Amino acid sequence: MQTSHPLTVDLYELTMADSYLRRGRNEPAVFDLFVRPPVPGRRFLVAAGVEAALDYLERLRFGEEDRAYLRSLGVFSEAFLDYLATFRFSGEVWAVREGELVFPGEPILYVRAPRIEAQIVETYLLNVVNFHTLIASKAARVRLAAGFEASVVDFSPRRDHGPEAALGVAYASYLAGLDGTSNVEAGRRLGLPVVGTMAHAYVMSFPSELEAFRAFAADHPAPVLLIDTYDTLEGARRALEVARELRAEGRALAGVRIDSGDLPTLTRRVRRLFDEAGFPEVKILISGDLDEYRIQAFLAAGGVADGYGVGTRLGTSYDLPALGGVYKLVEDAAGPQLKKSPGKRTWPGRKQVWRRWGEDAVRDVLGLEGEEPAGAPLLAPRMKDGRRLAAPEPLVEVRARVRGWLARLPEDLRVIAEDPKPEYPVEVSSGLATLVRRLERVRH
Amino acid sequence: MQTSHPLTVDLYELTMADSYLRRGRNEPAVFDLFVRPPVPGRRFLVAAGVEAALDYLERLRFGEEDRAYLRSLGVFSEAFLDYLATFRFSGEVWAVREGELVFPGEPILYVRAPRIEAQIVETYLLNVVNFHTLIASKAARVRLAAGFEASVVDFSPRRDHGPEAALGVAYASYLAGLDGTSNVEAGRRLGLPVVGTMAHAYVMSFPSELEAFRAFAADHPAPVLLIDTYDTLEGARRALEVARELRAEGRALAGVRIDSGDLPTLTRRVRRLFDEAGFPEVKILISGDLDEYRIQAFLAAGGVADGYGVGTRLGTSYDLPALGGVYKLVEDAAGPQLKKSPGKRTWPGRKQVWRRWGEDAVRDVLGLEGEEPAGAPLLAPRMKDGRRLAAPEPLVEVRARVRGWLARLPEDLRVIAEDPKPEYPVEVSSGLATLVRRLERVRH
Repeated sequence: MQTSHPLTVDLYELTMADSYLRRGRNEPAVFDLFVRPPVPGRRFLVAAGVEAALDYLERLRFGEEDRAYLRSLGVFSEAFLDYLATFRFSGEVWAVREGELVFPGEPILYVRAPRIEAQIVETYLLNVVNFHTLIASKAARVRLAAGFEASVVDFSPRRDHGPEAALGVAYASYLAGLDGTSNVEAGRRLGLPVVGTMAHAYVMSFPSELEAFRAFAADHPAPVLLIDTYDTLEGARRALEVARELRAEGRALAGVRIDSGDLPTLTRRVRRLFDEAGFPEVKILISGDLDEYRIQAFLAAGGVADGYGVGTRLGTSYDLPALGGVYKLVEDAAGPQLKKSPGKRTWPGRKQVWRRWGEDAVRDVLGLEGEEPAGAPLLAPRMKDGRRLAAPEPLVEVRARVRGWLARLPEDLRVIAEDPKPEYPVEVSSGLATLVRRLERVRH
Repeated sequence: MQTSHPLTVDLYELTMADSYLRRGRNEPAVFDLFVRPPVPGRRFLVAAGVEAALDYLERLRFGEEDRAYLRSLGVFSEAFLDYLATFRFSGEVWAVREGELVFPGEPILYVRAPRIEAQIVETYLLNVVNFHTLIASKAARVRLAAGFEASVVDFSPRRDHGPEAALGVAYASYLAGLDGTSNVEAGRRLGLPVVGTMAHAYVMSFPSELEAFRAFAADHPAPVLLIDTYDTLEGARRALEVARELRAEGRALAGVRIDSGDLPTLTRRVRRLFDEAGFPEVKILISGDLDEYRIQAFLAAGGVADGYGVGTRLGTSYDLPALGGVYKLVEDAAGPQLKKSPGKRTWPGRKQVWRRWGEDAVRDVLGLEGEEPAGAPLLAPRMKDGRRLAAPEPLVEVRARVRGWLARLPEDLRVIAEDPKPEYPVEVSSGLATLVRRLERVRH
């Protein structure tokens, strides 16, 4: 977070940059960052990592040690190492807002900068936008499956791809509408609500389950008891006993958690047990390899839960563990550029996406910057001359906006199904279509 | 790397710890860290992250700011916050060596420490061991598919789960036998070989492909040319022209890279082109969503390559994006412990794994520490009284050992297939089997 990560870069970005410098090929170039369609199992994406990208661009410097290491590789010219000594990103960035709903193929951001600067930042920008967008998009689906009333929290730190990834997961999933995280560091660093219950090991550390429950209830202001260490229904009865004892003291049992077994059946029975005993306020939280598919199946099977702890499958976006975001040259001094490798087409030129929200559809038009607007523009200038044009929005505001979008999402986009569906149709403007036809006729 | 990550912890570890402290329940406890079988698509695992775990345990401290934040959550006792002020991990760790081949169910490490200490470290230990083992295990399969002669390098940074994850991927995949990474930071921080070629954007930045190739070859000591920006076979002919020009200057074209298209056919044709022209030394490198399955299919289809750049599917372990490693109480003052939740069995007690390498099998016995050895023990003391017993081995040595194991792996374990196979059989000692039967009769 504090470092500028100058060497988190694929080596070839730097060797290409060195070559550009030697040849004076440092005229402005435009690179689009977008996710190539199709994206299996995702009807839409929640763009995230834009703020992290801007942060990086603003901070990026190459210190003396960085340059000494690069020199030791024996592939760089002294002129290039000198160039890096005074490097600052001086370009312009247009981007969607953090948390924006986007469709594959639409630019999440574009960079316009002297070619060397634009090239050097590719790896890092792709890394942070791919990762955060991946997780935010997954979290949005989990939220849609669980509904907007339930509490849904990130329980993923133990399975995420390292401690920093855990922080990113907490950030991106909160941004996309979840309610908090078990990750204390994310609470501190990002101001997120932190949540937690108890583990099986705690229960096992006492001579009996009931003693464990009583101890935890005495020591925690809002206890949630884990009831499936031995037998879930017996566990529920013991938790009820503790709920009665707490009520007698003027306190309350906050809830119970079930982490294994036949969750639809168990939650119904446990719900009935507490309701019939006069404890409807005791919440039921479930966990254990949940994701949007399993939450949907759980609810379809008549399961009842007030909250969901979602871990592994959220934090690694289990059904889609990477996003194919790419960063492609679309314009330079020679004009708009088109890459023709099979299956790897790009849309040339500086572009805009216009959106119209309809009753039963989100209609997007992908066109060229400067064409007649066909709705509200998604891309706006975020950085000029290497400086942010505005401070990052508070995360709670981003989250509120994303939840708002999710809540009004047309039925067609809310569908959660494992089988791939056709891409969501994004219209291409006539200006862009004409440009592509023209460039396709050019031979290299 | 520099921080001790005190708050990279699930909140419940700390609330449970607070309760243990209030109740004086801080007697020694033993927790096993292991991966629950079955693990889909993995016949064996390459344990990694043990060094990172030991590092964390040695450094872990709770600073004033950490405690101030915890106090602000309003769920901790002052006594617990005072306890954290002087916290040091004082326990013992037994673990396999970094890079050890293990089977699901076998302990990768166990912690014996006062219960509070052992509990607090759960989240972080799981995070780093799960992640690094996940990637190392994937990389080992990629190595097996590509064979031991080919060069295989990590091209994943742009798709990894954040910049720190990219570093972890480079580490774990090198450890498991790959040859280097495109990640410059990994080169600097870990001393790994860094590698790279050129991008499509470079080619597109020149008026023609040939001019781009000539420029790059002039500017790079060992040029590898990317030949698929427009038409791969035409690109190959242009690269050959450059190879001739370089030879005339007493230099050499190092290789060509192909990143798209029908790779088996294209590589065969490009190989023939260079061979027939008298340039057999020009290497062919392929990339583009490769993994062990695709490399195997590429070779089966008659593809020829000297090297592979493996990105997304390595760095996110695409076919298995998380490892189900868990950390379970197996012994405390009350004796060996057994968790009985359905599908979540644990092996009780302090254990050992004994291994015998045979001609056509690796035979492991899981037993109780102190039983008659049934082979070479895998677990050994790595930390005592909170201090490492030895410095980490140099990474190149770990890598050499892992490559040695992979090279002598029995046929049955080398199979690369997407369809699940039965778990690899790990024998259970009679002492351990007897203990389980005894504990299963106990009621809670």
